[in-house]
Amino acid sequence: MALIVQKYGGTSVGSIERIRNVAERVAKFKALGHQVVAVVSAMSGETNRLIDLAKQIQKEPDPRELDVLLSTGEQVTIALLAMALKDLGLRAKSYTGGQVRILTDDAHTKARILAIDEENLRRDLDSGHVVVVAGFQGVDAAGNITTLGRGGSDTTGVALAAALKADECQIYTDVDGVYTTDPRIVPEARRLKTITFEEMLEMASLGSKVLQIRSVEFAGKYKVKLRVLSSFEDEGEGTLITFEEENMEQPVISGIAFNRDEAKLTIVGVPDRPGIAAHILGPIAEANIDVDMIVQNVGVDGTTDFSFTVHRNELKKAMDVLSMVKTAIGARDVLGDDKIAKVSIVGVGMRTHAGIASKMFKALADENINIQMISTSEIKISVVVDDKYMELAVRALHQAFGLDQPASA
Amino acid sequence: MALIVQKYGGTSVGSIERIRNVAERVAKFKALGHQVVAVVSAMSGETNRLIDLAKQIQKEPDPRELDVLLSTGEQVTIALLAMALKDLGLRAKSYTGGQVRILTDDAHTKARILAIDEENLRRDLDSGHVVVVAGFQGVDAAGNITTLGRGGSDTTGVALAAALKADECQIYTDVDGVYTTDPRIVPEARRLKTITFEEMLEMASLGSKVLQIRSVEFAGKYKVKLRVLSSFEDEGEGTLITFEEENMEQPVISGIAFNRDEAKLTIVGVPDRPGIAAHILGPIAEANIDVDMIVQNVGVDGTTDFSFTVHRNELKKAMDVLSMVKTAIGARDVLGDDKIAKVSIVGVGMRTHAGIASKMFKALADENINIQMISTSEIKISVVVDDKYMELAVRALHQAFGLDQPASA
Repeated sequence: MALIVQKYGGTSVGSIERIRNVAERVAKFKALGHQVVAVVSAMSGETNRLIDLAKQIQKEPDPRELDVLLSTGEQVTIALLAMALKDLGLRAKSYTGGQVRILTDDAHTKARILAIDEENLRRDLDSGHVVVVAGFQGVDAAGNITTLGRGGSDTTGVALAAALKADECQIYTDVDGVYTTDPRIVPEARRLKTITFEEMLEMASLGSKVLQIRSVEFAGKYKVKLRVLSSFEDEGEGTLITFEEENMEQPVISGIAFNRDEAKLTIVGVPDRPGIAAHILGPIAEANIDVDMIVQNVGVDGTTDFSFTVHRNELKKAMDVLSMVKTAIGARDVLGDDKIAKVSIVGVGMRTHAGIASKMFKALADENINIQMISTSEIKISVVVDDKYMELAVRALHQAFGLDQPASA
Repeated sequence: MALIVQKYGGTSVGSIERIRNVAERVAKFKALGHQVVAVVSAMSGETNRLIDLAKQIQKEPDPRELDVLLSTGEQVTIALLAMALKDLGLRAKSYTGGQVRILTDDAHTKARILAIDEENLRRDLDSGHVVVVAGFQGVDAAGNITTLGRGGSDTTGVALAAALKADECQIYTDVDGVYTTDPRIVPEARRLKTITFEEMLEMASLGSKVLQIRSVEFAGKYKVKLRVLSSFEDEGEGTLITFEEENMEQPVISGIAFNRDEAKLTIVGVPDRPGIAAHILGPIAEANIDVDMIVQNVGVDGTTDFSFTVHRNELKKAMDVLSMVKTAIGARDVLGDDKIAKVSIVGVGMRTHAGIASKMFKALADENINIQMISTSEIKISVVVDDKYMELAVRALHQAFGLDQPASA
């Protein structure tokens, strides 16, 4: 007998029929003798409907009241799922975040979980109930309703799994796991049976949006066994997210991530002296612009070029800031380019394997793809290339690292 | 400075525009220096939408989970109204039933209020907030969400007014007060400036549906000053519901109530001996059929006729029961009639005025309306007449008792 936390997202509970399907899946796990906690999101579309109501009243809705409003979305789903479970003859009981007592800080609309009182849930589980918990919500110490922000239901699932010391936290979504890359770009993309937390973090932040990033961090911190599964398929083991030590024989590269969300800025002919990077990025930070990749070339003839990427929406704002910086530091020019794409290879195996970077660069060179920026971390290498080569680059790298081949045991 | 509890029903908060109107009305009271607690229902149509969702899953929805589901309706409204108040520059804070702590028993879908913790509300009021409370809902001692049943928001308003010792509880609805009778039947019907609690109870239970009956009982018990007003008119003082001792010069008759909800059963030729009424009504009670009026004629030649009324929907069931009873007690026949109407005159003044009944009967006789049954209480006289004479009877009585004349001061 295992204790399993299952999290179902908005599309998985998006209609009465789908809520019934979820109830049937839960019933199967109960029939196998497991204890089940089901964490659910609002029915798809509901959160947007509520936000729209709020915005008709206040352009910037009051955060405390917005949380009161939005938390009703999950409350509807828990009641309906509990009814569907009872309709199948199971014992079931719903809990709002406040009823569990998922204690959070008071940062309305983006609260963080501080503690979970698992006592009532445990008692219900031990007496044979399926426990249905509203994701995405909690209460602060003063009893105000809080929400964890978009995608927060994943975090609720993982946090409950940690508090209950569950054997597994299953995240049901509309894909059947984590893939080596996006199958829409590379038809040969394979589902990964396992991926490490570190890789998952890199994949998620790089654009393979399967799991909310905070939930992955949370799972890593509390060593929760996390599995991504499809709620629309009856079979399939999904992708298990593991700790590195559990899985010594990692493939070198697990996946290829990519995005077109960024724009590149280059400030040319910067006097090459200490503190120059701070002079450039200080005003950018003051303007609340997030920076992703940062590259500074080696200086020749006393000057250097300095490049970084920002979100595409903020290119114009960043250009305005840099044109002031240019004058102040005596640089030659400022260039902006939003026709770029970032492509990354991710894998914990690269820590122990040499030659990964050169293999990556050769694969791109073989396709005549010019690399504009390079950035590396322990378990990933990212390059910026011309926007129009993105799909080609992803396919080339997917093949070069053998990701289309079945993993050898 | 007064403390006023204002209750707004579903149609009063039925759209974003109407919620804004409510906020503006509350703002006016604040501007006059009053403290305001606003109790709100779910937006009109929302409760039915939620019940419909539930019934798609369970034909008889689980009561605990139905309460979790339905309570979201008011929760949406409190958040939106609090936002609308803030948008007008007021301080405002919303409370669910559980957050106030409106403690109820655990009778899901028809819970009764046991206690209200008014401490937090009082603190917010004293610091200048408008307090917005979800009607219709509470929590039981174990923290389960409960609802008070349809119309329960009126009860929430009155209960909060009692707990906070408010100066007045204003019930805003889509009519501008309590009328001497239904203006659709008698165009001359007048709005009553005052009505006593006892009369209100008789009027409400007899079909003039303005206030939920339990809220009136509650107001009477805790001496809450209750006023019915229109939320769609800016002026108007509505109808104040008073205690009899406050208003010694009551008119003899305050209003005419009526309904077509009942059917009449008569068991003919019943042996006239002690205990016969119990023999007839015992099996009816066992079949869970509610009985309203009961009339037993004086017996002649050793037998009597026994009549009573039930809800129209239960006529067939009651006939089936009586046909068995007939044989058992040796009665002659059982007659059923659902073409009846009940018309009542209500007024605390009749306690001290003789001749009211005969005046009523004469007014009906003048219109050739035959009276089939008569039933009296301290402050009302009800008659059963042929269905088709109902409107005529109401108009005749309205005129006979001078209700179309302005009340003399």
